[in-house]
Amino acid sequence: MSLDGTYDDGNIFAKILRGEAPAAKVFEDGDIYAFMDVFPQAKGHTLVIPKHTHARNLLEVEPEVLGPLMLGVQRVTRAVRAALNPDGIVVTQFNGAPAGQTIYHLHFHIIPRWEGVALGRHAGGGMADPAELKVLAEQIAAKIA
Amino acid sequence: MSLDGTYDDGNIFAKILRGEAPAAKVFEDGDIYAFMDVFPQAKGHTLVIPKHTHARNLLEVEPEVLGPLMLGVQRVTRAVRAALNPDGIVVTQFNGAPAGQTIYHLHFHIIPRWEGVALGRHAGGGMADPAELKVLAEQIAAKIA
Repeated sequence: MSLDGTYDDGNIFAKILRGEAPAAKVFEDGDIYAFMDVFPQAKGHTLVIPKHTHARNLLEVEPEVLGPLMLGVQRVTRAVRAALNPDGIVVTQFNGAPAGQTIYHLHFHIIPRWEGVALGRHAGGGMADPAELKVLAEQIAAKIA
Repeated sequence: MSLDGTYDDGNIFAKILRGEAPAAKVFEDGDIYAFMDVFPQAKGHTLVIPKHTHARNLLEVEPEVLGPLMLGVQRVTRAVRAALNPDGIVVTQFNGAPAGQTIYHLHFHIIPRWEGVALGRHAGGGMADPAELKVLAEQIAAKIA
């Protein structure tokens, strides 16, 4: 899908927000929802999405949604660090399929990195074990400040 | 450099902000400064940095700096799209050397992507021609809305 298009209310993140699809939830407040990526590129790969928007990407998002979203991204990134003690953390956001986007509801990836451990390919390693994701989500949730 | 440490006022982005080092400037306002990456991973690779912070990364940045920074990132991302018409755009931010960070002043990368064109390695292709970067900066600057 290109950068042009319209929001599809049937996307998996919209379903998660409506409680119609499961997720290993890390955190939510009035503005954001954070959960484990089911196709993790590294241990602890977490996603943060805004609740109240039909923005597919960063280009489209409303300023009043972007501000609280980024404070949420920072908050969850700090919790990921506190929980898992990685050597580095990549925060990234994809706009359009050629950039790596697969779900068309704006989201930020928080990807822990460790020295000497290569990044996995998204979906390349298959779907993660839901029980393992739940444990990670609880570890990170416990460090939300 | 790890996620821990202190801000070094001699980093190249601090020098650019003080006018002590050159940059192919795209845009600046009271909060942010945008310029071309001299080691581009793709044509039009642009960086956006906050002016008024000693944050090395996303973990450290003040909330009052993060909000305007992200509005600036969005604004410049839209201009990159309008100027270069890429098929996709990656927006990314590295925390710590194992995540790919090389300059320890908080910055966001805006990296255009085109179908079938692989991403270059940062610094892998050597330093870009300053004259070419200036042309790109002017093309993007012309589309700042």
